[in-house]
Formats: sequence, C-alpha cells, structure tokens
Amino acid sequence: MRTQVCIIGAGPSGLLLSQLLHRKGIDTIVLERKTKAYVLSRIRAGVLERGFVDLMREAGVGARMDVEGFTHDGTLIAYDNHQFRVDFAARAGASVMVYGQTELTRDLYEAREAMDGQILYNVDDVQIEDVTTQSPHVTFAMDGKSHRIECDYVVGCDGFHGVSRKTIPEEKRREYEKIYPFGWLGILSETPPVHHELIYANSDRGFALCSMRNDNLSRYYVQCPLDHRPDDWSDAAFWEELKRRIPDAAADQLITGPSIEKSIAPLRSFVTEPMRWGQLFLCGDAAHIVPPTGAKGLNTAASDIFYLYHGMMQHYLHGEDEGLERYSEKALARVWKAERFSWWMSNLLHRYPDQGAFDRKMQLADLAYLEQSEAAQISMAENYVGLPY
Amino acid sequence: MRTQVCIIGAGPSGLLLSQLLHRKGIDTIVLERKTKAYVLSRIRAGVLERGFVDLMREAGVGARMDVEGFTHDGTLIAYDNHQFRVDFAARAGASVMVYGQTELTRDLYEAREAMDGQILYNVDDVQIEDVTTQSPHVTFAMDGKSHRIECDYVVGCDGFHGVSRKTIPEEKRREYEKIYPFGWLGILSETPPVHHELIYANSDRGFALCSMRNDNLSRYYVQCPLDHRPDDWSDAAFWEELKRRIPDAAADQLITGPSIEKSIAPLRSFVTEPMRWGQLFLCGDAAHIVPPTGAKGLNTAASDIFYLYHGMMQHYLHGEDEGLERYSEKALARVWKAERFSWWMSNLLHRYPDQGAFDRKMQLADLAYLEQSEAAQISMAENYVGLPY
Repeated sequence: MRTQVCIIGAGPSGLLLSQLLHRKGIDTIVLERKTKAYVLSRIRAGVLERGFVDLMREAGVGARMDVEGFTHDGTLIAYDNHQFRVDFAARAGASVMVYGQTELTRDLYEAREAMDGQILYNVDDVQIEDVTTQSPHVTFAMDGKSHRIECDYVVGCDGFHGVSRKTIPEEKRREYEKIYPFGWLGILSETPPVHHELIYANSDRGFALCSMRNDNLSRYYVQCPLDHRPDDWSDAAFWEELKRRIPDAAADQLITGPSIEKSIAPLRSFVTEPMRWGQLFLCGDAAHIVPPTGAKGLNTAASDIFYLYHGMMQHYLHGEDEGLERYSEKALARVWKAERFSWWMSNLLHRYPDQGAFDRKMQLADLAYLEQSEAAQISMAENYVGLPY
Repeated sequence: MRTQVCIIGAGPSGLLLSQLLHRKGIDTIVLERKTKAYVLSRIRAGVLERGFVDLMREAGVGARMDVEGFTHDGTLIAYDNHQFRVDFAARAGASVMVYGQTELTRDLYEAREAMDGQILYNVDDVQIEDVTTQSPHVTFAMDGKSHRIECDYVVGCDGFHGVSRKTIPEEKRREYEKIYPFGWLGILSETPPVHHELIYANSDRGFALCSMRNDNLSRYYVQCPLDHRPDDWSDAAFWEELKRRIPDAAADQLITGPSIEKSIAPLRSFVTEPMRWGQLFLCGDAAHIVPPTGAKGLNTAASDIFYLYHGMMQHYLHGEDEGLERYSEKALARVWKAERFSWWMSNLLHRYPDQGAFDRKMQLADLAYLEQSEAAQISMAENYVGLPY
C-alpha cells in the first residue's frame, strides 16, 4: 500500500487530521489497534476551545456539534462555601463549546466513511521504519497477515502508550513528567446537571467538578486517593462526598441518580521533546498529557493538528516546508502554555497530602485574588477558552 | 506616664503611626529597645507603593522623598538570557518610588523630633499588661529604673522578635509559616546601577536582583544556599556570580566596585492571626513577614498603619469604634494578598533544590506567559504597585 500520510491511531486527533487533509486532496491511511466500537465507547472530556470548534467546522464536521453542543460563556469557581463566576465572554471575548468526545468522534467517523477514507481497524504489531530517510514505511499485522504502507510522512496520534513516541530513540528525546498525588473519581449519571455551567470546587475535603454532557447526562468528579478503586465507592457515598465539597446552595439543587459509569483516572503532566523526528510527527497524547483540570487534553491535541495540517498544506499545495520544519517548535510552544495552565489550575483546586497550613492559605488567597481581580480573571479566561494558535 | 497610644518599636512603622496620630492631636509615646543610631544604620528595602508614598505625604514627611526618590514606572524581568519589561504605568496606571528605608526613617525621626514627639530609646524589659481590660499599661526599664505607661491602646511595631506578638496567649493565636530553602546574599556598592529600573532575574544558576538606592549606590543580590556565610563570598566571586545570572547584555554594562556592606538574609513567609488582642494592635513584622521578592515587607506594614491610623481617628475624633473593631480583619485581608504575591514571585524566580525538570519547565512557562500576556502583566503590575487599601 502507498499513501502520502500514514496516521497511527483513529482517535479524534487522527480522524480530524485525516479529514482535514482529505479535503485538501492529501491522501491518508489511518491505522487503529482497536475496533471502531471500542474507540467510540471511550468516555472523555467534552469542553472544546474556540480553535477546536473552528477546526471541526473547517473539516466539514461541525453541523451536529453546532446544533447539539452547548455554548458556555463562563464557569463557576467555588471555595469556602460560596461560588463566583468567571465570565469568558466578558473577560476574553470568547466562549467554549460543551460537546462530548464520543459524539465528536462519531461525527468524524461518519465523515471519513462518507468519503471512503481508509481506516484500518484491529491492526497489530505496528512498526514505524526509516523515518529519518525520505521513504519511511509502516508495517503491521491485520487479519493474520503482514502489511506494509509506503508513505511520505507518518503521524503518531496513538496516545501515551502508543508506538510512535517510542520510535524516536530514547537518547534523542527528553521527557518531562509530574505525577499528581491523587486521582479523579468520576461518575456519569442520567440526571440534569446541577448547573448549566461547570462548577470547579476547592473544598477542605478536596477538589470536585460538576460537569455535563447534555441536559440529562451529568458528569461529576471528586478528588480521591490514588489507591482507591471505583468499587470502594457506592453511588450513595459518591453523592454524599460531592455534596460536602460544593457550596450548600449548589448541593441543595443536586439531583442524584444511579451512576451509569464510574471510574478513577490518575493525574499526570507529561511532555516529550521534540515532537518531530525525521518524517515522523507526534500529535496529542503521544507527545503530551495534561491533568484534566482545565480541560486542555483534547484541545492541545487539536492545536497540534492545526499546526501539522497547515504544515502539510504548505508542503503539498505550495512546495514550502517551513511549516513542517517548525512543527515541533510551534506545537511545543503552545503545549507548554497548556501544561502551565493545567498545572496552575490543578494546584489551585486540589488538596495536596503534604500541604501545610501556609500553603493552604496561599491556595485560598489565590482563589480570593481570582475572585476579586479582573486581570486575574482575564488571565484565567484567556487560557480556558484557548490561547491563539 | 500616661499617653493615649503607646507604640512599641521606633522603626518606620512606629514612627509613621506616631507622626500621623500626632497631626490629628492624638498623643503617643514610642518605646525603642535600641539606640537611634542603631535603627538608622539598618539597611533595608526601598521600593515604596503609591499608598505608602501617599501616607508619607499625609504625615507631612514626604518633601525630601519627593525630591530625592526615584519614580519607577516599570521593572525588568530576565530569564533565558534576555529580559522584558513590565510597564507599571501602562499596565496598572501607577508607579512605585525607590527611596531607601534608611532615608525614610531619618525623615520620620526628624519630623518627630521637630514636634517634640516622645521617643524613648534604650528601653529594656518591655512588658505589655492588661490589654484585655480598658486600662492597659506598659512597663519597662530605662536608665536603670522601672517605668510604667498608662494608655488606651498599645501598638506593637516591634518586629518579628518583639514582645508584642508574644503578649497574645499562644492558644489565642494561629501562626502560619514557610521557610524557603535558600537565602539572599546582598551587597551594597558605591557604583552606578546597571540599569535605571530593577532587574529581577531567574537563571539556571538561581535568582538575582539588580536594585539601587540612588545614582551612585547599587544594591545587588544573588540567591545562595542557607548555610553560606557572607565571608564565604569575596567581592570578586559575588560579581562573577551576578554576571552569570543576568543576561549578557546587562552583564556587559555592569560596573563593579568594592562592597560597602555584605550580608545574607533568609526568606520567610509568616502570618499570625488575629492582629488585634483586646487593646493591643500588631503592625508590620510583629504580625507578618514576607520574602523580599516583590518588595512587600515595608509596604505591608504601611497598609497596617493606614488601617490603624483611620481606626484611631474614628475613635478619637468621632467616637466610632468600627475601624478598630475591624482592624484585624481588614489588615489581614490585605496581608494575605501581599503574602500571596510575594510567595508567587518567589516561586517564579528562584531555583529550588528539589525542583524537578518538569517544575523548572513550569517556571519558564510562567515567565514566558508573563512576557506574552497583557493580563498576566496587569496582574503582576497591580500587585507590585500595591493593591488598593
């Protein structure tokens, strides 16, 4: 097989890039280790920056999102049994879109299929070869047979555990990592959200987040110790703990119900440098992870896709390689900004096991400052809605 | 002896309060453990917030400051071998005044003496008694004799090691403290400053600060390990290290010379709550310490003095006690903001012994964000010039 761009991983990043390139006449093949059903079943974040929303529209897959997505013009921050609002529209002149990753991935699949985009599922033993030459190729197993794709470029959209990053020799990459000493216990329930905007809560008992997918599908989280398991938490215990961590006024409004999903996610900050190695480009979780506080994971993948899409267009349509040459530099500059914001917001909102009384006071002072200072709110809002690409 | 307000400590806070109250016809006696010459010999910070400047003028002691002080409309922040400017005037509509604490204290002494203000030096064994009654008194030894002052109120301006804070029973106060794992090695030299504004530098080798007292008196600092002694550092070693920590372009301009003072100061964050106990009020270092990054020490003492001065005026001139009743609450609200800013700026600019590669990247990302974001610069500037009282 031969293609111009071989994309490893059919999550939202890989599909979005494939779709964008297709519309510019650039040929791709997407390889996916799992089944389509598996990818579509993954429940992930759904707060989209304006840049992501624009990219979905440019890819021609924004129609359902624009109808079913919810525009959020602000968010609530709670501490000390009260809450205040950061108005994204007033502070940063923009908003975010709440639209579940599952829905977004489904839209991308449908678009790719409608255009006969090549997505190969259930591939195994993916190996990326000769990326430091002008003729890289990717080998893999499918249906019990070996296959090989010749291509101009390989794009790694295969996540933190994927093969793409590891293709770069260890001595040629530098990795930065921080593991946070807690996790997020999250549940999904078919109940109306407690509030039409998100509530990020810092309480003496730890962090909580009230989020949603739609009018009758709520997503709630509480910070929990890393050694807890979802089974340690009954639904009743979860709701009880959540109520204790949000202001009384919000807790009184909370409608509870059986959880339809319950899981614990660790929090990690991770970046690998560089994000390009020869003809191989890394995108999204393959190159960087943020803690979920601030909802930057999928959005930072989208900014990688933006830079790579523009670099590929320059190359294939204009014979210019500046965009591809500078991909790693440009993508990383924005990645580090998103890492900074996610780290800051995580530090602001969680209780730390080793947090002294002074450090706790600093956290509360940071929250009070955010509540009172227009500049602090602009700073938070401009990051939350997404810094310019 | 009898007075209305007995002030413990004749540093700038005690003298300023005494002077302000005197001008409103409120009688004070100031007690000082040391000699006047000793107090005047102390070398301290000299960056004054607009609020402090206004208070000096209101006290009638701003004339020399207004002539000899230097207005700074901005500051430089250096990292990664370059520097950028935060324009206080443009970002926060205000500036700061550089005027040495030694000069300011001298002006206050002269004003107090010109008005026959009572300052008793070389007092010993100060004890503050009966502050939870309506008739507190202060006893002390001077010239080998015991003395006693009856008063309405006692104000503790006697610093971190003074007797005032300790007068509040231990079980009635809560203390918050953070000790930073480094110190500042500072020198004073009779050389022109390397730049007409301050340079705060974060380098791979640690923090450095280029400050000044006047056109021919420079104050420079480098972060150093806590176990270093000033004698460990020759002048040559100091200048060499300073040059390595500031951008090459600044290092090339640096004019060096013999140090006329060299000392190492630890960095500490400290707050005690409450700041009022019966008829006793704590001000400045007696109640709180900030690390010097951000120059908030003397300025935060000044905001205490502002609230207490207004409370005393309300009481003596209008028979209203609301200002005094709420002194602790109001003063602490602003103290915690200054603590937050000083802690943030210290974290931003110093190398930490246990700082991992990711944490170092976050620091550099914070600096890059400050360099690029108007909101981040407004936030820094509004704190640096001083949040409103």
